[in-house]
Amino acid sequence: MAFTGSADIIRIVGHRGARGLLPENSMVGFQFALSTGIDLLEFDVLLTADDVPVITHDYKFNRSFVRGPDGKFLQGELPHINSLRMEEVKGFDIGRLDGSTDYGRRFPDQAQMDGIRVPRLDELLHLVSQPKYANACLMLELKSDPDSALDPVARAGFVSLVCDEVRGAGLTDRTLLHSFDWTLLAECHRQAPDMPLSFLTQLHDSEDDVGEVSSYLITPDLHQNGISVPDEVSKAGGALWCPHFSEITAHDLARARDLSLCVAVWTVNEPEEINAMIDLGVDAIVTDYPGRVQRRLSDRGFRWTL
Amino acid sequence: MAFTGSADIIRIVGHRGARGLLPENSMVGFQFALSTGIDLLEFDVLLTADDVPVITHDYKFNRSFVRGPDGKFLQGELPHINSLRMEEVKGFDIGRLDGSTDYGRRFPDQAQMDGIRVPRLDELLHLVSQPKYANACLMLELKSDPDSALDPVARAGFVSLVCDEVRGAGLTDRTLLHSFDWTLLAECHRQAPDMPLSFLTQLHDSEDDVGEVSSYLITPDLHQNGISVPDEVSKAGGALWCPHFSEITAHDLARARDLSLCVAVWTVNEPEEINAMIDLGVDAIVTDYPGRVQRRLSDRGFRWTL
Repeated sequence: MAFTGSADIIRIVGHRGARGLLPENSMVGFQFALSTGIDLLEFDVLLTADDVPVITHDYKFNRSFVRGPDGKFLQGELPHINSLRMEEVKGFDIGRLDGSTDYGRRFPDQAQMDGIRVPRLDELLHLVSQPKYANACLMLELKSDPDSALDPVARAGFVSLVCDEVRGAGLTDRTLLHSFDWTLLAECHRQAPDMPLSFLTQLHDSEDDVGEVSSYLITPDLHQNGISVPDEVSKAGGALWCPHFSEITAHDLARARDLSLCVAVWTVNEPEEINAMIDLGVDAIVTDYPGRVQRRLSDRGFRWTL
Repeated sequence: MAFTGSADIIRIVGHRGARGLLPENSMVGFQFALSTGIDLLEFDVLLTADDVPVITHDYKFNRSFVRGPDGKFLQGELPHINSLRMEEVKGFDIGRLDGSTDYGRRFPDQAQMDGIRVPRLDELLHLVSQPKYANACLMLELKSDPDSALDPVARAGFVSLVCDEVRGAGLTDRTLLHSFDWTLLAECHRQAPDMPLSFLTQLHDSEDDVGEVSSYLITPDLHQNGISVPDEVSKAGGALWCPHFSEITAHDLARARDLSLCVAVWTVNEPEEINAMIDLGVDAIVTDYPGRVQRRLSDRGFRWTL
C-alpha cells in the first residue's frame, strides 16, 4: 500500500497540495508536489449546488484567501459552496492570502498568484491519470456541510457522486476515502467496499487550526476513559488512521500496527515536529512543506518512495 | 525595462530559479518560478570542455549538492566544469543537498530529487521561448574560471558562445548580461553592444556565501575612499547595478537613479531584509524564496509585474 512505510521509508503526503508554498487545493499546487516527487496528495472535496465535486476545504468560502470577481477578499456573509453553481465557483480567485488575517499569517512563504480557480475533482483525477504519475495516490477528504450533515439522502448522494468520478477515472485502487465524519465513511464503505477508508481524529483543539472553518464532526466519543482510538478505527473498517501529530503515542502506534492499520499523521510542518514523527516511526507524514520533510528524511537516510 | 520598478512595483528575480525550494540552477526550479508568476530568472553560466554553455554556479562542482554516477556526494578532488564534456556533465545529479555541509544547512526547505541534471543554456532559452513565457527575462550571469580568467582569447570565446546562443534564440532583448567580472562585461559590450549589462558588486564578505566557491573577481577597486559605486557602474556602461543588499544606501540608490541605472539587490531571503529593501525602494529583489517576497509585496500593496 502506497501509504505504508518500512524500516527506511516514511511516506510524504502533500497537504492540500503544498499549502506552505502554493495556493492550497489548487492545480498549480498539485502539479508542483507531483513535479518534486511527492506522489501522495491530500485534498478536500465538497459539492456545488449543481452537484459537481470540487476541491476546496471550507464549506463556506474562507475570506482569508478567496477573492470575488471584483478582485477583493470576500467581506460580509460568505457563500456556502453548496449554494453556488460550478460556473459561479469558477468566478472566485484562490491565488492569494490576505496577510492581515490570522490564517494568512500562517503561510508567509506562499506564492501569490492571480487567476487561480477552485478545481473540479475531475481535473485532478485527469492529471494523475497521466502515465508519468502512475505512482500517484490520493487521500481524498470528504468534507461535511453542517446544512446537510445529518441528511442521509444528501450524504448518500455526495458519496455516490464522488465515488462515481473516482471509479470512472479508474482510480479506485489509488484513492483513499478520508474523513473526520465517521458516518460518511460508513456510507463510503456501503457504496464502495473495494476502496480503503482513512479515519481522521483530533481530540483537542490545536493552534494549527487558526483561521479555518471546521468540518462538521460526526465521530464516536473518543474522549471516554480507556478508549483506544486505533481499536475504534479498526472496528469501523479503517485501513488507515490519521491522528493529529500531537496526539499520537508510541503505545497507540504499536497498537495500530497490531491491528494492521497504516498510520499517517497530520499536519506536520515544523522541523522539530518532523523529527519527532521520524523518531516515532509513523508510516506517513502529511505536511504543508513537502520539501522540508524530504530534506529531513534525506539527511537521516530515509526514503519516501520505493 | 523588465527589471525597473515604479511607485507600486518592485520586481522579483528568482535566484538560480528558486534555490530555497528547488535544486538550484535546474530546469525544475526555473519551471516552478515561471509557473508562479516569477518571470525574471537569475542563473549562472560556464563552459564545458567541449564549449557548451551550461547553467551551474561554481567553476568546479560543489560537493554539497553534486552526486556522481555512483549516487554519492562528491569526495576528494572536484572536477572543473571546463574539464568535463557535456555528456560527462549530464552524468552528475544536482537534485539533493548534503545536509551535513554548511551549504546544505542553508536551505532546509529545498525539495530533494533524483535524476536532476545540469541544464545546457539552450534548454532554458528554449523554455522561455514558449509563447506563454513571453514576459520572461533572463539575468544571465557569466562566471569566471580562475584557470582562464586572465586569458583574453578564452574569455572572448566564452562571451561569443553565450551571446551566439542568446541571439540564435531571439532573446537578446530579454537577456541581461550579468557578472562580477567587469572585464568580461567589457568584452560582452564589444561583442554585443545591443545587450544591456548588469554589474554585480560586493564589497565585504557575507555569511550568505558560506559553502560557495567564489567566482574569480576582476573588478575595479571599489574600496577606495570617496568612490561612488553607481558612478563606476555607469561609467562602465551598465544598465543595471546589482549590489549585495547589505551594502546599498539610500544615497547610492538616489545616485543610481540620477544616472538612470536600474538597481536590483541580491540575495534577499529573510523577511526583515525583504521589508528593508521594500522600504528603500529598490527596483528589483533577487531572492531564493520568490513566494516569500510575493507575500511581503502583496501584503504591502505592491505588484511585481505590470
